[in-house]
Order: sequence, then structure tokens, then C-alpha cells
Amino acid sequence: MEGYVQVYTGNGKGKTTAAFGLALRASGAGLKVFIGQFCKGRNYSELKAFKNLPNITLKQFGTPKFIMGKPSDEDYTRAEKAFEEVKSIIQSGKYDIVILDEANIAMDMGLISVDDFIDAIKNKPDNIEIVITGRNAPKEILEIADLVTEMKEIKHYYKKGVHARVGIEK
Amino acid sequence: MEGYVQVYTGNGKGKTTAAFGLALRASGAGLKVFIGQFCKGRNYSELKAFKNLPNITLKQFGTPKFIMGKPSDEDYTRAEKAFEEVKSIIQSGKYDIVILDEANIAMDMGLISVDDFIDAIKNKPDNIEIVITGRNAPKEILEIADLVTEMKEIKHYYKKGVHARVGIEK
Repeated sequence: MEGYVQVYTGNGKGKTTAAFGLALRASGAGLKVFIGQFCKGRNYSELKAFKNLPNITLKQFGTPKFIMGKPSDEDYTRAEKAFEEVKSIIQSGKYDIVILDEANIAMDMGLISVDDFIDAIKNKPDNIEIVITGRNAPKEILEIADLVTEMKEIKHYYKKGVHARVGIEK
Repeated sequence: MEGYVQVYTGNGKGKTTAAFGLALRASGAGLKVFIGQFCKGRNYSELKAFKNLPNITLKQFGTPKFIMGKPSDEDYTRAEKAFEEVKSIIQSGKYDIVILDEANIAMDMGLISVDDFIDAIKNKPDNIEIVITGRNAPKEILEIADLVTEMKEIKHYYKKGVHARVGIEK
């Protein structure tokens, strides 16, 4: 099966969630999935759910703290190490699908170089599907992608004062 | 926890997939989820994956045949019965989240009345979260929703001739 490059971007809810649904469907079909989460390092409920699913490996590369404003030295070091790991995972051929959650954000914040990232994607083995999520996808990523969906916020309940809820948003 | 109404619509890839990711996350948090799929009746890979997940019940209300053009009498009968079942499931209080996959399509095709659907949503128990997916969401649905994300197709590989693949799209 030839692998493509899918991108989920935009300011609306559903990007990471769609990638997780994709991982779930793939695991049902017996495909092997790696999910690397940039800029995230918290025990979200999905970590618990993935424990029940064979064929899915999830790794969080960030710290529990959300990056606000200027990234710290630790954020840079972690992203750099994460990117090295992701490159070897893509090349390893162990996974049919590699999901790079919030990689757009990591590039947008300058934690990963867009050029290096594109090189890694261009050099992927043919049969591997890559899924990239996060708002503010760099235009170079949109150009090399085979599929791009923009999740567009039309209405959001956080404007009503609804906070992230366990099991729904986190 | 108060329940809201979420809608995923638009012509892009990721609507059903996001709802499945949401179900996965919720199951990880111990919430109970019902997924009713209108207009679908095939053994998609997700059916297999959901078998490994506690707390998720998935039911397909459609036939294996995709509805093209004018719906058949069977399509109408099935949708009517499905809608009755969904209403009692919403009222039963057995589930924290009720996902109505492709319900927008069912309304758009006239298989379910928009007014009746809105009544069912308005009469839901307070603590139940409702998630509605499908393109062409009726404007009345967007009005009563608390959260709306439009999945907008920016680029799609089917235009390159890529067909739905097992584990990725189905």
C-alpha cells in the first residue's frame, strides 16, 4: 500500500482527535501505528484508552507544561531529540502509519526546522503514511501534503466559559 | 458534568474519524459512549477496533449499500426505526456521550425530519453530550449546537486517483 501525507490544521476542535480516530481504525485493520506528540506531556485520557489497543504506540515528547510565549531551552532540547527519534521511527519500517501530533505547532514556534522536517517526510519509505496535525501548518507543509483538511472553528463552547473536560477534551 | 452539543460538518476528511477519536478518549476516562451510524452498514475496520474498547457500543443503522440519488423505501424505514432507537438511547441515561454519525446526511436527504431531530436534542438529559457528524448540517442544527467545527477540504488525494484504503478510510 502506498503511503501518503495527511495534514489536519486550522483553529477548530478535532485535529488531534481525528488523528486518534485514524489510529483506532488502522489498528482495527491490523496496521501498526506510532503516535508522537510534540509539545505535549500530560496524562490525557487517550493514553489510557490506547493501552487497550494493540498495534498503537504513543509517545509524548513535551513537558506537562503548555508552552506559552517564548519556548524554554528545555523545549528546544526536547523537540530536537524528539525529531531525531521520529526520523529513525519513520525509517525503521516498523510502523505503517506515523502520526506527528502538533508538529505544525512545533514548526510554527521554531522548535523544529521546516526544511529539516520536509526532508524527513520526502525521505520516508514509500509505504508509510504520515499524518501531521496542529494549527498554523507552514505553507511548505501544505504544498508537499497529499491531503489537507482545515478544521475551522465556526462556534466553540469555550466562549461560553466551558473549560476542557476529562474524557471530552483531555 | 453538563453535556453539550457538538457538530462536525463540512466536505473535508476527518468528521467521523474525529468522533471516533472522541469516543476513544472518553472510553479512556471511563465514560460510556454510544455510536449510532446512520446510512452506514458495512464492516469498517473501526468496528474491529472498538471490540477492544470497553464502554463503547457501536450500531450501524444503514445497509451495506451507499445511498446514491433517491433513497429507497428501505432507507426510509431503517432511518425511522434508527431515530426511534436513538431517542430512547438518549433518554435512557445509560450513556454519557451519544454520537450520531452521518445524522446531518440523514436529515439533508430527508430521511429524518430536522424538527423532530431538534426536539430530541432539546429534550436530552442535561448531562449527556451529543456529537453530530456529516456534511451539509442543516442551519437549524448549527444554531442549537454549542460547538461547530467545519472540516474543510483544502486538498484531497482522491483527486489523484487514490481510492479508500482499508485501515485508513475504511
